[in-house]
Amino acid sequence: MPFSIPVADQARVLRDIVDLPKLAAHERFAHADAETVEAVLEGAAQFAVGEFLPLHEKGDHVGAQLKDGVVTMPEGFKAAYREFVEGGWMTLSAPEEWGGQAMPLSLSAALMENLNSTNIGFALCPMLSLGAIEALEVYGSDELKQKYLEKIVSGEWPATMNLTEPQAGSDVGALTTKAEPNEDGSWSIKGQKIYITYGEHDLAENIIHLVLARTPGAPAGTRGISLFLVPKMLDDGTRNDVVCTKLEEKLGIHASPTCVMQYGDEGGAKGWMIGPENGGMRAMFVMMNNARINVGLQGVGIAEAATQKAVDYALERKQGARAGANSPIAEHPDVRRMLMRMRSLTMAARALCFYTFGCIDHGATGDEQMKLRADVLTPMAKAWSTDVGCEVASLGIQVHGGMGYVEETGAAQYLRDARIAPIYEGTNGIQAADLVGRKLGLDGGLAFDGLIATIRAEAVDERLQALADAVEQTAAMLRAAEPDNAMAGSYPFLTMCSVLVGGWLLEKMAEHVDADARTKAASAFFNATIVPEAFGLGASAGAGAELLYSVDAEALG
Amino acid sequence: MPFSIPVADQARVLRDIVDLPKLAAHERFAHADAETVEAVLEGAAQFAVGEFLPLHEKGDHVGAQLKDGVVTMPEGFKAAYREFVEGGWMTLSAPEEWGGQAMPLSLSAALMENLNSTNIGFALCPMLSLGAIEALEVYGSDELKQKYLEKIVSGEWPATMNLTEPQAGSDVGALTTKAEPNEDGSWSIKGQKIYITYGEHDLAENIIHLVLARTPGAPAGTRGISLFLVPKMLDDGTRNDVVCTKLEEKLGIHASPTCVMQYGDEGGAKGWMIGPENGGMRAMFVMMNNARINVGLQGVGIAEAATQKAVDYALERKQGARAGANSPIAEHPDVRRMLMRMRSLTMAARALCFYTFGCIDHGATGDEQMKLRADVLTPMAKAWSTDVGCEVASLGIQVHGGMGYVEETGAAQYLRDARIAPIYEGTNGIQAADLVGRKLGLDGGLAFDGLIATIRAEAVDERLQALADAVEQTAAMLRAAEPDNAMAGSYPFLTMCSVLVGGWLLEKMAEHVDADARTKAASAFFNATIVPEAFGLGASAGAGAELLYSVDAEALG
Repeated sequence: MPFSIPVADQARVLRDIVDLPKLAAHERFAHADAETVEAVLEGAAQFAVGEFLPLHEKGDHVGAQLKDGVVTMPEGFKAAYREFVEGGWMTLSAPEEWGGQAMPLSLSAALMENLNSTNIGFALCPMLSLGAIEALEVYGSDELKQKYLEKIVSGEWPATMNLTEPQAGSDVGALTTKAEPNEDGSWSIKGQKIYITYGEHDLAENIIHLVLARTPGAPAGTRGISLFLVPKMLDDGTRNDVVCTKLEEKLGIHASPTCVMQYGDEGGAKGWMIGPENGGMRAMFVMMNNARINVGLQGVGIAEAATQKAVDYALERKQGARAGANSPIAEHPDVRRMLMRMRSLTMAARALCFYTFGCIDHGATGDEQMKLRADVLTPMAKAWSTDVGCEVASLGIQVHGGMGYVEETGAAQYLRDARIAPIYEGTNGIQAADLVGRKLGLDGGLAFDGLIATIRAEAVDERLQALADAVEQTAAMLRAAEPDNAMAGSYPFLTMCSVLVGGWLLEKMAEHVDADARTKAASAFFNATIVPEAFGLGASAGAGAELLYSVDAEALG
Repeated sequence: MPFSIPVADQARVLRDIVDLPKLAAHERFAHADAETVEAVLEGAAQFAVGEFLPLHEKGDHVGAQLKDGVVTMPEGFKAAYREFVEGGWMTLSAPEEWGGQAMPLSLSAALMENLNSTNIGFALCPMLSLGAIEALEVYGSDELKQKYLEKIVSGEWPATMNLTEPQAGSDVGALTTKAEPNEDGSWSIKGQKIYITYGEHDLAENIIHLVLARTPGAPAGTRGISLFLVPKMLDDGTRNDVVCTKLEEKLGIHASPTCVMQYGDEGGAKGWMIGPENGGMRAMFVMMNNARINVGLQGVGIAEAATQKAVDYALERKQGARAGANSPIAEHPDVRRMLMRMRSLTMAARALCFYTFGCIDHGATGDEQMKLRADVLTPMAKAWSTDVGCEVASLGIQVHGGMGYVEETGAAQYLRDARIAPIYEGTNGIQAADLVGRKLGLDGGLAFDGLIATIRAEAVDERLQALADAVEQTAAMLRAAEPDNAMAGSYPFLTMCSVLVGGWLLEKMAEHVDADARTKAASAFFNATIVPEAFGLGASAGAGAELLYSVDAEALG
């Protein structure tokens, strides 16, 4: 069977978990009525399958190519991107003022999942623009907004995020790209940025780079960083002083050009400041925050695609006997266990990511508590969903046996593509640090505690309740712990929390009066196997740092 | 730092776990005295680093190439293979009668680990020969032995294993390759074999294929399979009727040619039967059994290499501050957690694989109980160590951040290479089925129970004792369970058992009076974090099959 978008599942999450009808009851989302939502879900599925999916393998095999500073996308990408823009898909969640449809982010999540499940390397292009739109809308001057926002919103001019430098990755504060003021109010940008996704390509006539740099005399570290808008093409039709000098050869997402960008080698790239001087970090967080949830959706999209592929193969491939001679391998218990695990992890991760966006949407209707809840959930949505993406893709290979290791089958591509997601937009370790270091204490701890209280009030399965106990105890311990001890337990704690939230949401869907059999089965399996595994992480989360530093790191090599 | 073979760790495992001195006290291994062992360990390390390691990247980038039926290995492989043969490395554990050194398999394990950690794609060539030597020695006629064994033992003529056919993978009994008797006592083989590792190459003048096929009128299924020896070159210097028609494009192990082999397209490939007619499966198990442990050592080798690379990078890469400004990332707790996890999993998996071979060695000195223990441990050594290989390689990418996803760093290659090991030589699911379906009941259950009793008697940490309780309870349940229920829990059960054995062995090394600080640290970390995680698997192991079959497999797609 060809890949199909799980529209019914998406609709269920939006109904049972996000409560889209409640959103639509508010004037902010009044246009997100049931009929429109259904049309968007159907249309997003058709678009992704019709335009992105046919380019999935080609994107991997051919990939983006760099020659003489020009990046050429594989054949077909340009036409498909045009369809994307003309179909208005870029505008779905963008503000109406700039040509957007102002739909809930939780609805846009379905579109993003689809783009990821059908062609993650392609999907990165619009994904990056989404973050830029938000940063520009919040912090940009009226003039900048007037000039650029409509074009970015429409998709005509895709945008990029330029943070990383060779010595400044997770430690953004170490960046050294410089911005000198020009007399006309613009800035002159000089420096090198690396790992710039879609930094250069031939899909559009212009590319709008959002670039972090330091102004003269700026304080050291993150307090001295400003954000600039640097267009590839200037008003007079000339090229700005920014070029792609290298494409990285990567394990996966080959369609996506990962660029080394050189700013100002010919004197200075012309840019305009976004927001206040030295206020770049805040703008960056606006830009990255939703991007993190969208990266979580990369995990969901790949997990969905890998699961469907594995189930198909397992139904078709016959080896050995279970219920009669020559059974499909899907009938063998351990293969079925893998398929069930893939399906239930995928559904739980989808519920988590959509829910996180849903909390932002409810926040946009004035529910401040939900806004804070989204902050608590974001590191889980990013980290756990991308871990799920890798695990499910790897299980997908295993289900295929030897065929899974052969590239032409396509199962291996999912693992190669999935493996980036735990790394970029803040490594999963950074997400865990964010959860424990910031989000546990948000609003005096009430944001996190409120989430757990909701779960306690709603979860039916006693194993979920017991996991909630364990999470609460661990949270209390981590709150009281020395920083090193808290950080030492941050990753297993994040996984525990995510499994709790994912299991609760999946159960909520399974308990719905209209729940289908597979949701019920996935939830039962999740509570019986994945939830108990999460208990085992409690000991790691509480193990402390002493164990880690009992020998020098050199001794571990 | 360049990669270095962990000779001291290997020596410790041989001393503390395998008890090599006890083996050397027996006449069978009298020549494995302390001095010789030390020389072998040092020599094996030097050989691997000197000859295999320099070809590691080239093997991946260039890979084996097929043109007009000729498979060409990357430049340098032929010369390195000659060094391997001339150094006598192929002969290490082979019988003296055929030119071997008859050293313990547990010592040979160190060599195999080294070949895997420096160049797994290359190491597959000798690995396949090891299995063939055993099958031929046990089942071959004197004539066949005289003619072939010395050449295979020396490495001059590498051997292959030809089991899989398109419709017959895990279900070996479904194979259809035919063997018709010739008048001269030889057989005429016709059929297609796939996934044949080193089925064709230019490293040697001859290749000796061991091929499973059916004789006329043979019973259906596994009871009708016979094993044949089919040389690439016949006595008269002409080519036998066997050709490589395709090389698979794989996720990793690019140096290793994975061949589609066509037998008998020109009338019939000439072969000679090994062992009795229809006795092929037993011969195959002899051939595969040690191969399984050697595949476990692939996991160990890759884990070792990935760990060293990650530690190096984490010491060199500076991001953010912990103990002072601009710390190496190795100082950050969550990075240190990953490094510690990598190191302790690697050490435990090494101990498990060496110990399994050690049990075979003790069996060869007449200890029947240890022989059975090796049977119990083999599926754990294969499956868990290869899972560890994948996990550690994936963590290695994560430690590198964005650099890990870029191919030139080399971290990604480890994951690509590692991912095959849970699949071949019996998928890890097949290993779990073997553990629960056969090994739990071996010798009336005494073989498994004896292992647990030894652990109970020796393990110091109470978490290990508690895990032994959990394993015993789960084993009792699985023994009493319906087959589907037992199989549904087989994989988590295998992991629980493996963690118990690995943790016990690691602790044994840590408790040794001469233990070094890193072994102690690794064992403490393992018991505090990885052992508790294994408890969580008890629920999955006991969850039963009903959960899995509550919906049709179609509903999971």
